[in-house]
Amino acid sequence: MNSAVLLLSGGMDSAVLLHHVARELRRERIHAISFDYGQRHRKELAAAARQAEAAGAAVHQIIDMRFFGGLITGGTALVSGGADVPDLAALSTASLDQPPTYVPNRNMILLSLAAAYAEAHGIHDVFYGAQAHDEYGYWDCTPEFLARINATLALNRRDAITIHAPLMAKRKSELVRMGNTLGVDFAHTWSCYRGGEKACGTCPTCVERLKAFAEAGAYDPLPYAQILT
Amino acid sequence: MNSAVLLLSGGMDSAVLLHHVARELRRERIHAISFDYGQRHRKELAAAARQAEAAGAAVHQIIDMRFFGGLITGGTALVSGGADVPDLAALSTASLDQPPTYVPNRNMILLSLAAAYAEAHGIHDVFYGAQAHDEYGYWDCTPEFLARINATLALNRRDAITIHAPLMAKRKSELVRMGNTLGVDFAHTWSCYRGGEKACGTCPTCVERLKAFAEAGAYDPLPYAQILT
Repeated sequence: MNSAVLLLSGGMDSAVLLHHVARELRRERIHAISFDYGQRHRKELAAAARQAEAAGAAVHQIIDMRFFGGLITGGTALVSGGADVPDLAALSTASLDQPPTYVPNRNMILLSLAAAYAEAHGIHDVFYGAQAHDEYGYWDCTPEFLARINATLALNRRDAITIHAPLMAKRKSELVRMGNTLGVDFAHTWSCYRGGEKACGTCPTCVERLKAFAEAGAYDPLPYAQILT
Repeated sequence: MNSAVLLLSGGMDSAVLLHHVARELRRERIHAISFDYGQRHRKELAAAARQAEAAGAAVHQIIDMRFFGGLITGGTALVSGGADVPDLAALSTASLDQPPTYVPNRNMILLSLAAAYAEAHGIHDVFYGAQAHDEYGYWDCTPEFLARINATLALNRRDAITIHAPLMAKRKSELVRMGNTLGVDFAHTWSCYRGGEKACGTCPTCVERLKAFAEAGAYDPLPYAQILT
């Protein structure tokens, strides 16, 4: 079977992943899944829908799991009702290994749901866009995390699902280049954690994104409220 | 901190676990979490609420994740819209390692949500009632599964959560005895996968439960439609 399940957030990493899996890995039937978990930047979901259509995904489902915001209230700045999203510049070096924008156990939750979907649909591969962030890091985007979650899923007695994260070792600037080669329309990807009308330009993911485009010598078509120089 | 998160289904295993954790392991603040994931036998949730109150749980939350049924449609007999729940007697020996009542990846999903809740609330321990079933088995109730999911969670850079399954190695008849010693009111636990007015007495979990009570020489106060002899 040439199918795959893919976690599609609507950010630039998963958008590049989607086009990569469709066109370079030649998966013909992609089931893209997006989650509304109460994130402030839920406008990324509209970007996800645009990208799914552009890449010719066979299925695109947006799962409403806004209950999750209530479950972890106070546990992250990324969900409405949590602390304010900080500027990257305001973060201490000590906090960069698990910044306030980390969402408790999010990736294990989303991957386990995607694995259940894959299993129920007779699909064996799940892709997600984890990437070794340049400026800060999350434990659930690491090769060790990937290996251990796959070791767990491998215990399934019938249909072991494998999680793949082919972009993990790449710098974000490489993703910009890959995306431009693949014709990804970055105007329809959303990164800013604050989720305002324009991208803020100062939150951790905006700073990282702008640096990545600069490093790649490419133009980011997204409108920004402020660009630090 | 003497707190714990506990997955409370409303079945007999998790009810015994709850009273065990409260009174024998002396956890003073138990956050019990139940999930409505579209199971046919959602009347177990009312039993869960009764047990949480009886055990003096500090918190009992029922999480509405009925979207899950849609996500895995056709993947299990346990959720409304799937195949009919089979009698245990109708299952082939070959299917007993992953019977039709297996729910794709359910335990990884529920445990990862419970771990997120624990992390957001500053709690480090999560309990669940996995038990080495006597008549059939699920891969996500095994010691290997527990070890690998804990190995994954141990990668968290700040607050590693540990999953505990203290009943795992016990026979179900031992759980009946433990429950009777602890004063668990088994009339307010629900097992039957069919979720009718009375327990059916013939589905896999009914047969297993009735055998366990017989083996323990105890009386099951639940009304049954039929008891095989």
